[in-house]
Amino acid sequence: MPYVNIKITDEGVTDAQKQQLIRGTTKLLVDTLNKNPETTFVIIEEVNLNNWGIGYHSVKERRK
Amino acid sequence: MPYVNIKITDEGVTDAQKQQLIRGTTKLLVDTLNKNPETTFVIIEEVNLNNWGIGYHSVKERRK
Amino acid sequence: MPYVNIKITDEGVTDAQKQQLIRGTTKLLVDTLNKNPETTFVIIEEVNLNNWGIGYHSVKERRK
Amino acid sequence: MPYVNIKITDEGVTDAQKQQLIRGTTKLLVDTLNKNPETTFVIIEEVNLNNWGIGYHSVKERRK
Amino acid sequence: MPYVNIKITDEGVTDAQKQQLIRGTTKLLVDTLNKNPETTFVIIEEVNLNNWGIGYHSVKERRK
Amino acid sequence: MPYVNIKITDEGVTDAQKQQLIRGTTKLLVDTLNKNPETTFVIIEEVNLNNWGIGYHSVKERRK
Repeated sequence: MPYVNIKITDEGVTDAQKQQLIRGTTKLLVDTLNKNPETTFVIIEEVNLNNWGIGYHSVKERRK
Repeated sequence: MPYVNIKITDEGVTDAQKQQLIRGTTKLLVDTLNKNPETTFVIIEEVNLNNWGIGYHSVKERRK
Repeated sequence: MPYVNIKITDEGVTDAQKQQLIRGTTKLLVDTLNKNPETTFVIIEEVNLNNWGIGYHSVKERRK
Repeated sequence: MPYVNIKITDEGVTDAQKQQLIRGTTKLLVDTLNKNPETTFVIIEEVNLNNWGIGYHSVKERRK
Repeated sequence: MPYVNIKITDEGVTDAQKQQLIRGTTKLLVDTLNKNPETTFVIIEEVNLNNWGIGYHSVKERRK
Repeated sequence: MPYVNIKITDEGVTDAQKQQLIRGTTKLLVDTLNKNPETTFVIIEEVNLNNWGIGYHSVKERRK
């Protein structure tokens, strides 16, 4: 019954890439801890560049 | 002072339903643990079907 | 497939009370949104009184 | 390596205010615990007024 | 700068298994989205069996 | 009604330091967004060094 929450910056992640993250994370939990994939949740959250800070600044600011 | 975070798939949940989730959760905390409703937070997050995975696939994929 | 995270202060919550929170929250999701209980997760986190702040102070401090 | 998640109601928070939250939180972690700002994450989440409940009602309802 | 939070039931996960989860998740983010591993956080939370509910019951209850 | 969750590594953070984090975060929300401190939650979570990964390794491993 694992629950995985992945937060990434919101910059054009495709549905195929999301699918890859879901598949890979689930497989990792199955392979490492023998978890049941049917009760393994993976939730992806895409965060606006203005809302993610690192090193005192938003990612938006840092990229300027 | 409980904090409750409810994540559900984003598929047309109405404001009335959200209100029902907020009222029901708060009442449960008050009835079970005698918590103060005025400092009981309930935050509902609606997650895109492409961003929620279960059983190796996104909900979007599974419904195809 | 809802996911619910309940954070409460750590002060002697019994297993019976936890069970009541789990049952009540799951029933609420089933009744309100017709969710499947077999893929409804409820995770309870108990937080130390020194680690929960409200109104500028930890709960521990406020109770002194 | 701290990780900070700030949830606030979604009501016109400006990028300058977000920047202020990021800078202030990071500085607090550096000053209090001597953390490295380059591995200090601050993630701001803005929550719809219908999705945030307190005192049995959504913030939207309470403001009516 | 991804942030990944993995919640699993607390039942004797070894440090080697945790290391495997950290390595695998980080590699997945690098391979799929070209993220920088030096700013990829993976946080594992182990949840008591009485505190994790599914299908109306705690995992502890279900295993009886 | 802000909610702030601070995750840090578990390495002897004192109650005085926790109190400083709570006070500083609350003040920041009050000063920046004019929030009510009485409904501002700050929750600090201390994470075991084996459970926090960065750069492919747990913090525990990296410090060896």
